[in-house]
Amino acid sequence: MLTLHGSPISNYHNKAKLALLEKGVPFEEQVVDFRNKDDALFASSPLGKIPFLTTEQGCLCESQVILEYLESVHPQPALLPKDPFAAAKVRELVTFLDWHLEMAVRQLYGVAFFGAPPLSEGNLARIRREIEQKLAGVKRLLKMAPYAAGDIFTMADCSAFVDLPLAGLATKTVYGEDLLLANGIDYKPYLKFIGERASAQRVQADRKAALAKG
Amino acid sequence: MLTLHGSPISNYHNKAKLALLEKGVPFEEQVVDFRNKDDALFASSPLGKIPFLTTEQGCLCESQVILEYLESVHPQPALLPKDPFAAAKVRELVTFLDWHLEMAVRQLYGVAFFGAPPLSEGNLARIRREIEQKLAGVKRLLKMAPYAAGDIFTMADCSAFVDLPLAGLATKTVYGEDLLLANGIDYKPYLKFIGERASAQRVQADRKAALAKG
Repeated sequence: MLTLHGSPISNYHNKAKLALLEKGVPFEEQVVDFRNKDDALFASSPLGKIPFLTTEQGCLCESQVILEYLESVHPQPALLPKDPFAAAKVRELVTFLDWHLEMAVRQLYGVAFFGAPPLSEGNLARIRREIEQKLAGVKRLLKMAPYAAGDIFTMADCSAFVDLPLAGLATKTVYGEDLLLANGIDYKPYLKFIGERASAQRVQADRKAALAKG
Repeated sequence: MLTLHGSPISNYHNKAKLALLEKGVPFEEQVVDFRNKDDALFASSPLGKIPFLTTEQGCLCESQVILEYLESVHPQPALLPKDPFAAAKVRELVTFLDWHLEMAVRQLYGVAFFGAPPLSEGNLARIRREIEQKLAGVKRLLKMAPYAAGDIFTMADCSAFVDLPLAGLATKTVYGEDLLLANGIDYKPYLKFIGERASAQRVQADRKAALAKG
């Protein structure tokens, strides 16, 4: 049995959970206190990060590594197009969402969500420029027609469904406007569309329950 | 014909080039002035980054996306183990090298290589802590026995061969000591071992020639 270790409030955790649910793979979920970075955590996840997946063969961390592994061992339903070039375009979009956009937006999480002291005007302006540059790249790849990478549900939807609202919320909290909307990424109808899936509803419900518990 | 666009002094470019050479795939190489971010560059690479690969079907950026694409269209010789879990462990190490370690070390490139003004003592100490934390994670995964991920040449060697010396050089230039060696990552014999391959010799020779041209 696969076990996904992490937190239902983490976007990367929920990306992996969406993939497991979409594929209909049986799995257990184990909440990890990832702020308590003890030896046991590092033994499973070499940088103490979540999520990680335990399998009969051992542990795997990194959400995209987990998704590629699931794609190999549970190929159906596929979360990548069959054509290698189309699959590569999906992975490209995943990288833009999970890394380039996320690394820029992450600089806001402390002040947006965790009560960190305010950022200086200079830092606020620099981070905003970085985020807007990444959004311009995302916009060139993100199709939402109707799925993130085109006409089928893929790994890119597992990323977009969790990454876009977090980036929207963080930028709105800090800058007073959702920089995704302000930069022409009209993602709300897309979220609603994906949110109709059973997998997405489960992820959302678990996230809300975890946030309510605090 | 595939064309790899980038610069022979870029580690990510050289990672993709190593994969092309190892697979024996015919390709052309095109040097890109990536500091001149014009519309043509953005049309190929949506964040204006190198390397990118042009194929008959279009452009792909992101070195790992390029490697996964090559693995699909030119599966032999394989750069991933057949076993999905072993392949996942290779991808995990690639992520640690190309992203986690690189993002921390990259903060030194300006001052180490491009004449940027010195970093403050506080920033130097913070970046050093970040690098040492990432190195601890890399150390838990990096086998060099004799290859980066174990007993066969994989994608992780394409990353390690270009990422490790760059991290070593940047930290030695800024801190006066190679933080990889100082943290127990004895990578020099590994570099020598991989450096005996024809692919690695070609990459090294092209890099030296490009650096000499300035």
